[in-house]
Amino acid sequence: MGKIILTGDRPTGRLHIGHYVGSLKGRVELQNSGEFEKVFIMIADAQALTDNADNPEKVRQNVLEVALDYLACGLDPKKSTIFVQSQIPQLCELTCYYMNLVTVSRLQRNPTVKSEIQQRNFEASIPVGFFAYPISQASDITAFKATTVPVGEDQEPMLEQTREIVRRFNMIYNTDTLVEPEILLPKNKACLRLPGTDGKAKMSKSLGNCIYLSDEPDVIKQKIMNMYTDPNHIKVSDPGQIEGNTVFTYLDAFCKDEDFTKYLPDYANLDELKAHYQRGGLGDVKVKKFLNAILQEELEPIRNRRKEYQKDIASVYKMLKDGCDVARETAAKTLHEVKDAMKINYFDDVELLNQQINKYKD
Amino acid sequence: MGKIILTGDRPTGRLHIGHYVGSLKGRVELQNSGEFEKVFIMIADAQALTDNADNPEKVRQNVLEVALDYLACGLDPKKSTIFVQSQIPQLCELTCYYMNLVTVSRLQRNPTVKSEIQQRNFEASIPVGFFAYPISQASDITAFKATTVPVGEDQEPMLEQTREIVRRFNMIYNTDTLVEPEILLPKNKACLRLPGTDGKAKMSKSLGNCIYLSDEPDVIKQKIMNMYTDPNHIKVSDPGQIEGNTVFTYLDAFCKDEDFTKYLPDYANLDELKAHYQRGGLGDVKVKKFLNAILQEELEPIRNRRKEYQKDIASVYKMLKDGCDVARETAAKTLHEVKDAMKINYFDDVELLNQQINKYKD
Repeated sequence: MGKIILTGDRPTGRLHIGHYVGSLKGRVELQNSGEFEKVFIMIADAQALTDNADNPEKVRQNVLEVALDYLACGLDPKKSTIFVQSQIPQLCELTCYYMNLVTVSRLQRNPTVKSEIQQRNFEASIPVGFFAYPISQASDITAFKATTVPVGEDQEPMLEQTREIVRRFNMIYNTDTLVEPEILLPKNKACLRLPGTDGKAKMSKSLGNCIYLSDEPDVIKQKIMNMYTDPNHIKVSDPGQIEGNTVFTYLDAFCKDEDFTKYLPDYANLDELKAHYQRGGLGDVKVKKFLNAILQEELEPIRNRRKEYQKDIASVYKMLKDGCDVARETAAKTLHEVKDAMKINYFDDVELLNQQINKYKD
Repeated sequence: MGKIILTGDRPTGRLHIGHYVGSLKGRVELQNSGEFEKVFIMIADAQALTDNADNPEKVRQNVLEVALDYLACGLDPKKSTIFVQSQIPQLCELTCYYMNLVTVSRLQRNPTVKSEIQQRNFEASIPVGFFAYPISQASDITAFKATTVPVGEDQEPMLEQTREIVRRFNMIYNTDTLVEPEILLPKNKACLRLPGTDGKAKMSKSLGNCIYLSDEPDVIKQKIMNMYTDPNHIKVSDPGQIEGNTVFTYLDAFCKDEDFTKYLPDYANLDELKAHYQRGGLGDVKVKKFLNAILQEELEPIRNRRKEYQKDIASVYKMLKDGCDVARETAAKTLHEVKDAMKINYFDDVELLNQQINKYKD
């Protein structure tokens, strides 16, 4: 059997260049690589509701935004099935059955859940849905028999939870219905988690420190010009620090040698630029302008494609709806196999019927 | 709107006279009372799997047994919708959404869950599905908009959890979609939890201390003759104790004044019989024979009806399948309302579509 990808995003806002460089760009490459039999891209609205139950409007509005961002980046509905999680009821059924195969204490030990609980200040009041979301993820992955899940290494504990459920299910029900997924890590480490433009570890809508894929050129430029660098690099002649300097982190993620030829021919590559900055005599503005040139080039075709799709929202909905139909059919097939393995498809089960008729024969 | 009942049983074994006197008998009366617009009776196989995931065969075999016991007791598919929980996928979807409205610490405080965890020796290794079953019960109850849940008072905390979910859902999503259920307690306290024939607090298949509705007359008689009484009541002349004396507990639950006229005319009623036993001079065998006469009379028509149904298992399956179809349709209607209230029926939502088309108009 061929390799199958499942991945996706929570629709809690438009996607930004952190999403792009950390996953979307690679996802498009995987889609176009020809190495995968099927690619499923999930807009995880149900998962977003686990910690946004009281603000469904935010999730609802962003399903379309994320779909537009996907199409803008080059995800192609002809090659990838883009769908909306809540429209696939089979995922909830799988979740309910998998919940019997995982203990409460096992969930409590999940390091990803632990740290996310802290980040969200949930502590004593974690919604059960949020607490159990590694099980829900296992449903998402196994419903499509995904072999390959392209995510950051912070998600490895979630993948391990899925593999545990797969092994336990297949063992208990003596079957090979479910497939153990592998993680596919991004190649460029700098891309794993791009910091906010203010230097904070995480891009977040509420902090206003994101560059969105849909941002206009002047907005992008302004965000770059205000970007956090080295606070001790005051005069151009001062030696500057590279570590924790957001502009250089972004360059690590985005810049290629060709960009120097085009936009900054005084340097052959990023190492030379860094060296000059470190020894002093290179101003922030010059580096920022270079980053701006690179980002503008990268984001322009994305923004333009997005604008094309924005002209025909009804078609985008149609594309999503068609994707949901395909995803639902696939998940229904897996669910049927799961229930067959569990032997709870009573009404399709001629063997059970005959067994019970015979039991009551005199 | 009329009153609606939801109730049911876990299919982990044939039903016994504890089930009968504690709920089934009253359930048939409620069904026939004309007071209820709809009666839904659920064979809770999915709930049974929460702590029997590794033994689905037990659950699977007993779906039919429980259905036969229902029909034998007089539940009538023309008046009550008898259905199988796992065949109603909407219940899992509701569970997943309700999981976002309940915190982990709230579940941990549920006294019923606490005591059941102890009974099952789960402690550190509770399956998540079992831990979360109050949420799953809320789905069962609300999916059918049940107003009335006839259960023992030990289930009151579960009903309260359901009411909390209903209130929270209706508040957050500004709706009156979900209905708060009321508990309906059995009238006869002696019926609430019939002890095993060995005097142990609970009837349990593994302890072999149950009288089943399907037991043959000689089996019933033998179980009664071996029944636990007062271990200090050795000679007939000894004074006997009523408290904790299983035979008298059963009489409390089953015997009517008319039974004395018919089977034991030396006494006018149970109080007189008890008084004689307490002052001495009344042997266990006499009392047991009286109980046997009463139980045989009560169980004979049930057993005979069961045998009639056993002759046509295919029809019983058909009845269950039809019940599932009705239940599924009802639950689907509620789920659609729930998703409408949450505004996640994106593809039916013309308002959302127009709003987003307008947003991207120049």
